[in-house]
Amino acid sequence: MVRIPLPQLRNPSRLFPAEESLRGLAADLYARVVDTPIISPHGHVPAESLVANLAFEDPAKLLISSDHYVVRLLHAAGIDLSRLGLGDVKIKPREIWRTVAENWHRFAGTASGYWLDEELAGILGVGIALSAETSDSVFDAIQSRLDEPDFRPRSLFRKFRIEFLATTDDPLDDLEHHRALARMDLGGRVAPTFRPDRYLDPNAADFSERIQMLLATRGAATTFAEYLQALESRREHFVRNGAVSADHGVEEMFTVDLDSSEAETLFQSVVSGSADAADRRLFRGHMLLQMARMSVDDGLVMTIHPGIARSHSSATARRFGPDTGHDIPVATSFTHGVRPLLERFGLQKDFHLILFTVDETTYSREIAPLAGFYPSVFIGAPWWFLDAPDAIGRFRSAVTETAGFYRGSGFIDDTRAFLSIPTRHDTARRADCAYIARLVVEGRIALPTAERITDDLVSAIPKTAFKL
Amino acid sequence: MVRIPLPQLRNPSRLFPAEESLRGLAADLYARVVDTPIISPHGHVPAESLVANLAFEDPAKLLISSDHYVVRLLHAAGIDLSRLGLGDVKIKPREIWRTVAENWHRFAGTASGYWLDEELAGILGVGIALSAETSDSVFDAIQSRLDEPDFRPRSLFRKFRIEFLATTDDPLDDLEHHRALARMDLGGRVAPTFRPDRYLDPNAADFSERIQMLLATRGAATTFAEYLQALESRREHFVRNGAVSADHGVEEMFTVDLDSSEAETLFQSVVSGSADAADRRLFRGHMLLQMARMSVDDGLVMTIHPGIARSHSSATARRFGPDTGHDIPVATSFTHGVRPLLERFGLQKDFHLILFTVDETTYSREIAPLAGFYPSVFIGAPWWFLDAPDAIGRFRSAVTETAGFYRGSGFIDDTRAFLSIPTRHDTARRADCAYIARLVVEGRIALPTAERITDDLVSAIPKTAFKL
Amino acid sequence: MVRIPLPQLRNPSRLFPAEESLRGLAADLYARVVDTPIISPHGHVPAESLVANLAFEDPAKLLISSDHYVVRLLHAAGIDLSRLGLGDVKIKPREIWRTVAENWHRFAGTASGYWLDEELAGILGVGIALSAETSDSVFDAIQSRLDEPDFRPRSLFRKFRIEFLATTDDPLDDLEHHRALARMDLGGRVAPTFRPDRYLDPNAADFSERIQMLLATRGAATTFAEYLQALESRREHFVRNGAVSADHGVEEMFTVDLDSSEAETLFQSVVSGSADAADRRLFRGHMLLQMARMSVDDGLVMTIHPGIARSHSSATARRFGPDTGHDIPVATSFTHGVRPLLERFGLQKDFHLILFTVDETTYSREIAPLAGFYPSVFIGAPWWFLDAPDAIGRFRSAVTETAGFYRGSGFIDDTRAFLSIPTRHDTARRADCAYIARLVVEGRIALPTAERITDDLVSAIPKTAFKL
Repeated sequence: MVRIPLPQLRNPSRLFPAEESLRGLAADLYARVVDTPIISPHGHVPAESLVANLAFEDPAKLLISSDHYVVRLLHAAGIDLSRLGLGDVKIKPREIWRTVAENWHRFAGTASGYWLDEELAGILGVGIALSAETSDSVFDAIQSRLDEPDFRPRSLFRKFRIEFLATTDDPLDDLEHHRALARMDLGGRVAPTFRPDRYLDPNAADFSERIQMLLATRGAATTFAEYLQALESRREHFVRNGAVSADHGVEEMFTVDLDSSEAETLFQSVVSGSADAADRRLFRGHMLLQMARMSVDDGLVMTIHPGIARSHSSATARRFGPDTGHDIPVATSFTHGVRPLLERFGLQKDFHLILFTVDETTYSREIAPLAGFYPSVFIGAPWWFLDAPDAIGRFRSAVTETAGFYRGSGFIDDTRAFLSIPTRHDTARRADCAYIARLVVEGRIALPTAERITDDLVSAIPKTAFKL
Repeated sequence: MVRIPLPQLRNPSRLFPAEESLRGLAADLYARVVDTPIISPHGHVPAESLVANLAFEDPAKLLISSDHYVVRLLHAAGIDLSRLGLGDVKIKPREIWRTVAENWHRFAGTASGYWLDEELAGILGVGIALSAETSDSVFDAIQSRLDEPDFRPRSLFRKFRIEFLATTDDPLDDLEHHRALARMDLGGRVAPTFRPDRYLDPNAADFSERIQMLLATRGAATTFAEYLQALESRREHFVRNGAVSADHGVEEMFTVDLDSSEAETLFQSVVSGSADAADRRLFRGHMLLQMARMSVDDGLVMTIHPGIARSHSSATARRFGPDTGHDIPVATSFTHGVRPLLERFGLQKDFHLILFTVDETTYSREIAPLAGFYPSVFIGAPWWFLDAPDAIGRFRSAVTETAGFYRGSGFIDDTRAFLSIPTRHDTARRADCAYIARLVVEGRIALPTAERITDDLVSAIPKTAFKL
Repeated sequence: MVRIPLPQLRNPSRLFPAEESLRGLAADLYARVVDTPIISPHGHVPAESLVANLAFEDPAKLLISSDHYVVRLLHAAGIDLSRLGLGDVKIKPREIWRTVAENWHRFAGTASGYWLDEELAGILGVGIALSAETSDSVFDAIQSRLDEPDFRPRSLFRKFRIEFLATTDDPLDDLEHHRALARMDLGGRVAPTFRPDRYLDPNAADFSERIQMLLATRGAATTFAEYLQALESRREHFVRNGAVSADHGVEEMFTVDLDSSEAETLFQSVVSGSADAADRRLFRGHMLLQMARMSVDDGLVMTIHPGIARSHSSATARRFGPDTGHDIPVATSFTHGVRPLLERFGLQKDFHLILFTVDETTYSREIAPLAGFYPSVFIGAPWWFLDAPDAIGRFRSAVTETAGFYRGSGFIDDTRAFLSIPTRHDTARRADCAYIARLVVEGRIALPTAERITDDLVSAIPKTAFKL
């Protein structure tokens, strides 16, 4: 059996540039923050898993089936998702793992491949590279690690040095798990995030049902004003339970300001189902602006993630549900679409609006210029498809010359894969240190400034952006 | 006379990064594939030229007049195309060559300049750089090379180690030259490619005429169903003569699914010339989807090259015809436009759809995510305007972190310039090795993985994508 | 007090790559052009300031309040523009300077921060880095420099080795200051630039008033033909006073060819205010084409800067006026929008059209291909938001492989900040040398070619593009 050591085990300077002076300086900067606690202000770890604190079942469920970054690339290799533990077919975890191992070369150079290598080597203590030949022994090594008593979510939470972790939650969630976590000594704080997309977008599959449930929280509510009050009340519930932000996923960055009678008419038409596509778009655009207004009022940081066409493959969505790897980015623009919102609230004291994108052309063209003027606008860290070493480097290069380092959100991991949290943050830290080191070596910033920025990027900057 | 040695002659590490560890590793990887036979699954060399196997006439006709990459940049310098051998005016080849030589500094840093330097040094054995002063002696050196008996197309085909070469052909082509080539021992295979644009796009100049010729192949055919049958029959003819792919050039990536009665009505309106712009667009979009259906049926790989506004300068098109250097890219998007096609065929076993682009923003935003999910979608290699060293590096950086190396098409040269085939493939190999070396030095992939990828990129990967 | 030496003072190789062979060669190339006189063919220095030749008042007014690159980033940090010397509130210059100093870390990595460091160290002789602690001593050091008798605009003009400086002027400007300057021995030439946006765009705030003033120059003019004659006459006035170019800022790159009766009708509707948005757009698009026609006739180089949404924040525009930091780029495309103009004039001998962009996706996709074919089209240097070291590197990489070096405009500084002129040109020279050095080390161009290009980029190339 060929046992190739993991490249990372050989190379403490991984992700740093090859050139010696850059590499040395990047390493020095990185040493400052390698152990800095993690701020994770946007992600998808279920609070319940931390409350229950059960052992992870098996390597496949932990690392493969639940990670749509991983399953999508296997699907692209012609492997039906049902063979990866999705859907109803029962597949043995060891078989799933073998499928991954046989196709492991397909992950070479990808962010997912790098993260998984890091998790295997760094967190799970596996010292050999995954391949068809090592599949079973790697599986067994992981399984025995998962069975260890200290390898439970809460132990890892502490071991990962998580200072702050935000989950993503339905507005009607009671947040009981968060209250339970608040009573525990986790070594860090877990906060819910208000994510109301399904209650704001008439195109959402369960919009009617959701909106009726929301209105029901206010008794016999039927008006737009009562709908807004219901949302405000749920946000208040989130604030009381520790939320710091409200998150909004939309395909198009579009906002519109309407007067209250227009909005009322529009609301009635979307509730009754009579609204056409243009009216449904208007409603979505107006509700995004209303969410900004509520953020101004209640202080929740507003994050917007536009530009994803969700569930691109209907057949896959029907068989396996959403979030199974076929969400595809679209060309995005912000300048005109966010303007009505910023005209109303862009200069409001303490309003924070973080703009994320999966269209990297918007970094230098729109997001950095917006964040370089509006005190309310922050540059969202590279997210989804762009949370990878080269992409992070391109991001820094694209935004820094216009907006510097202090208009950013800090890194977010946006992950469902609990074990990837420290890995993803480490990747971002290394990539950022590589960029900062270059600025020093090129004589663009002084070393003490570089050191301050390195420290601030993982602490002061995300804490400012997310009001922690 | 100042005789500057060609930079390439001085530098076996050309196109590799300056940093020593990267450069050394890139060179090691490149050594593995420097002599690997060429797979050229998309190009424009006329099959007839290989059958006839005539000596190339002169340096200007071989390297300048027939290469729209070259003439366009001379035209931009204010040199009328008629001075470069296009149109009816007779210009002495030596004069054309002098014009090029006097303007050679304008090609510095361009892909065309690099390729031509490579051809001069590597294939034509010219050891001095082209300049106004060396023009005549370089011309004479090339001419004497062209006059050598072993410098004929078929000798070069063998010398270039071409394993597979696809031409681009009209659907009504009898393909007699391909049959002739199939009977020869070339040292490699030549295959036709089905390119039906003019038969599918009502905006094409000779659409009416072409469609009548096509329908005539089926007797008194007049219906949409018969039109489809005529196309299917011609595809069958191509398959029988060795074709592996059908190629589609469109300005807009747009597909639409219509029922057969809608399609019939639309067909009659475009054939009669009564269709308006919106209907002509619908027809094009539907025919692209029909082509996908036929690819599913007959197995031809479907390649789409959207995003070029052809013949941007009407005056030039009138004087010199199409393909004379004034085709200009436009902003392109895939996510919504390709969706109807993928909803129908995206998950079909053995359907291969290769998406090319000249809008590099689509690499990270759309093409890599699509190819990272749909088993049918492959990432087209950087093509036209982007088939250059830096652009290839940007391409790898943009797609690899999302989709890895194994969702690509492999390099295509897309060239009319026969002598540039090995040069263009060599450029891509060097640029790819530079990228792969960086991943190794940055600890992102292990050396054995890098070696496998290097080998696969020029062999297994194009063979898989093009079903060779 | 911590006194950090400026990084630039430590590093003569600033902005050059870290790798030794690249760095050494970049330095050698740069040494050729470090003292080459400055060609500044597009900028915003007021001619009057050179005529008056008054001492600069204070550090804040000179370096902060008048530089919208700087104030926007402070505004983004939550500092009201009124605290930076904008608007009516009187703030002591020393206080403004302290605000800057306390926030100086926010500029780390930005182009503005780099330029200001360069100006402090290189022009103002300040040897310590700006910080809250050094604020007053830096302020005093600058103030004493400003009070020196040789630190007046005309002395600096000579000291900066400015060979050519273009201002930007209203079409109705009498240009008396330019005539005054023409009579002085400045050591270089100052030329006006014809900038007619407000007279061509019915959406401009003072369009009606402006157009009446323009028509009044022709007596009782009321027709479109007379309007065109009035513009032609003002251009003639500019040509007589030394202008070499006419500059056009538009949000959208759109041109349209209309016959004279259509244009007349359209003109009457925009003058009367009855034109709707579509007609106002048509008018703008047609006037851009008319401007091209006039450039063909009178020889003024035509420059177009599309893609900026001006005064994005209405509240700020109301309080502080335009050009105060909240102009935001939008996605831009050229291929179709510029086509009507190029169909008419693109092949006209001696017509020069320079296309600038703030959407860098257009460099490889559209601008380089257009300039790689049309002899009239030149690639505008990276401008606004993109006139920074990394962005210049991306620009060179994006355009050179398609269009080489000789289709560019040469660098433009586009600045209101007089002291930043040499700094900005030096930045561009360094960044270009870094790029050229890489091409040599990668064996893509020979050293003598690299040397020629380095020289030409700061002299022959801008002189050709701007017909100097």
